[in-house]
Amino acid sequence: MNGFELHNPTKLVFGAGQVQQLGKLVKPYGTRVLLVYGGGSIKRTGLYDEVLAQLESIGAIVHELPGIEPNPRLTTVKKGIAICHAENIDFILAVGGGSVLDAAKGVAVGAKYDGDVWDFTINKAVIRDALPLGTVLTLAATGSEMNGNAVISNWETKQKRAFGSKYAYPKFSILDPKLTFSVPADQTVNGIVDIMSHVFEQYFSLTPDRPLQERFAESILLTVIENGEKALANGSDYGARANLLLAGTYALNGTIQNGVVTDWASHSIEHEVSAIYDIAHGAGLAIIFPNWMKYVYREGISQFVQFAVRVWNVDPTGKSDDEIALAGIEATRAYFTRIGAPATLADVGVDAEHLDRMAEEATQFGSIGSFKKLGKEDVKAILELSL
Amino acid sequence: MNGFELHNPTKLVFGAGQVQQLGKLVKPYGTRVLLVYGGGSIKRTGLYDEVLAQLESIGAIVHELPGIEPNPRLTTVKKGIAICHAENIDFILAVGGGSVLDAAKGVAVGAKYDGDVWDFTINKAVIRDALPLGTVLTLAATGSEMNGNAVISNWETKQKRAFGSKYAYPKFSILDPKLTFSVPADQTVNGIVDIMSHVFEQYFSLTPDRPLQERFAESILLTVIENGEKALANGSDYGARANLLLAGTYALNGTIQNGVVTDWASHSIEHEVSAIYDIAHGAGLAIIFPNWMKYVYREGISQFVQFAVRVWNVDPTGKSDDEIALAGIEATRAYFTRIGAPATLADVGVDAEHLDRMAEEATQFGSIGSFKKLGKEDVKAILELSL
Repeated sequence: MNGFELHNPTKLVFGAGQVQQLGKLVKPYGTRVLLVYGGGSIKRTGLYDEVLAQLESIGAIVHELPGIEPNPRLTTVKKGIAICHAENIDFILAVGGGSVLDAAKGVAVGAKYDGDVWDFTINKAVIRDALPLGTVLTLAATGSEMNGNAVISNWETKQKRAFGSKYAYPKFSILDPKLTFSVPADQTVNGIVDIMSHVFEQYFSLTPDRPLQERFAESILLTVIENGEKALANGSDYGARANLLLAGTYALNGTIQNGVVTDWASHSIEHEVSAIYDIAHGAGLAIIFPNWMKYVYREGISQFVQFAVRVWNVDPTGKSDDEIALAGIEATRAYFTRIGAPATLADVGVDAEHLDRMAEEATQFGSIGSFKKLGKEDVKAILELSL
Repeated sequence: MNGFELHNPTKLVFGAGQVQQLGKLVKPYGTRVLLVYGGGSIKRTGLYDEVLAQLESIGAIVHELPGIEPNPRLTTVKKGIAICHAENIDFILAVGGGSVLDAAKGVAVGAKYDGDVWDFTINKAVIRDALPLGTVLTLAATGSEMNGNAVISNWETKQKRAFGSKYAYPKFSILDPKLTFSVPADQTVNGIVDIMSHVFEQYFSLTPDRPLQERFAESILLTVIENGEKALANGSDYGARANLLLAGTYALNGTIQNGVVTDWASHSIEHEVSAIYDIAHGAGLAIIFPNWMKYVYREGISQFVQFAVRVWNVDPTGKSDDEIALAGIEATRAYFTRIGAPATLADVGVDAEHLDRMAEEATQFGSIGSFKKLGKEDVKAILELSL
């Protein structure tokens, strides 16, 4: 493995009823709170009332930024930044899934920056400060609850870009599996695919001799594979929801990334698809990832053989490495299909029209990925495999 | 799994040559530094000079607490506390293995407490503050580099006791696998046993439905089993040393403990043995742990069956659960013997004379353990199995 630094200061507060800790957790950061949330499902479930009661218990003055989109938009983030400035906000509280958390991170870093927050996503500026941020998570998916990363969509330019900073780690994240009981099947599926994809981006690497990171990654995949189907069979299965939620956090909190050169090409490609078509991130990843695997596996076939054997229990007896690796990739696709994820761009209504533009955008700063460095033609080939 | 809080603020700085970061890492905490180390091996290896050069580069005034014992003693910790008071120390830097780190933690919490630091180990006082502490680790073993726990020996009363506090987490820990190249075989073996034992204490639990924590624990065990033998075959195998070092950290940094009721009876028993006989902690654990397993496995046999199959690759075909579980326990003993760890108290010169006293001391605050609650007679039985 390579050298690395790991510093993850987020306090994880996990378990049924932990929202009751919220007031106590927010209190040290001040009383002027910006509450960030999505489409209102937290009002239907009663979570909104619980959160407000907690904030009232510490005498907080609450301003709101509702309506965060599934692919959170730059315009919305800017609205939040304006509220922070106008209302002298002390603390940002995100209540929702990954999109809400990512938008809140955008607000947190943007509120402490004089320029355009979009600058951070195009390497025009470096994040040097942020408002403190806490989260109450309602969806097992992005891992945003325990890292400093966020993805924002610029709807005007049809671009979807990420930023990351040590300043954007949540101070705390409350993870109550019961809050995910009401997540509908399609979003549960997207979450499962998202978590598995995060692991893939870090597991398929050419960095040698990192057995612990590999086994940790396989542990997350096996846990998600087993518990994903359980959660889909019974949305109120506490154990399944809890295991998914914890797996999602560990998929992207640094644990499996320590000292590993990661890839992230599939995410970059998916971002270009969903920047234009506004499809769910998990759906896009389900379509693209197995095709990325097929396109690149020969660059490091032993990793794909190990994946097939350890994660999908492929029997290697009498098979060539090529056959074993492909069986693992097929098993991945079969699992995605079994849980109801789309397999082709056609399944989500995307045709070949913009493939060239997507490939162009994905590689605008140069080749992407590390397992195999992908240029524009490679990206286009993967997109064509996905039609 | 149960509810839990996880907050691990230690910054891990891992890799060859990372001691070069030391000055930069210490600087924010002040200039009056207490350097804590052990028997002088860091002078032979040149690490001492490197550390001093780094501290000089930031203009630090360095005081020293050398000579930390393998089972660090209360008297030595108190010497360090006196230096902190006399010299108005800002920051404590521990350079060495787990014992040095534990002693430094004792100094750090004791320096901010008016009473006797021993109070913290006997629940007479609660830790409410500590001097900031950093570490440079030279041995893969205790995990002390990324948690808030320490074990101190009171040689006058022949007691070995632990304390834990959020204030005792190192601000940073530098882990350079090359610094462990010179660790002799016997200490490498003790470290391997220590790491595996930490995992056992958290893995053998009656807490249901914690597949991720179980698989993470198995990941650590498999990594240690594979890389332990490699490190013993070639002490300068960077990959093996690096994998052991990282596994040791993850064995006790909270990752596998999340939401799990842990046991720690074997550690309590071993502490009573090494409090009287001053044997190496790892040696004592190698003797006791397989006997603890034999004594308790029927309380949760499925856990031991899983352990045998997943960790030791025991073929379950045609075997009863009892046979599978016992095969896993035998495989553990066989591995310890293969790497050169002792198997009986007789191997380390301990006879039956003080068994009764050890069992008495181990259970002085009541029964110990959770997988099976052990009273005095249980502890004595395990010690007798170990003769």
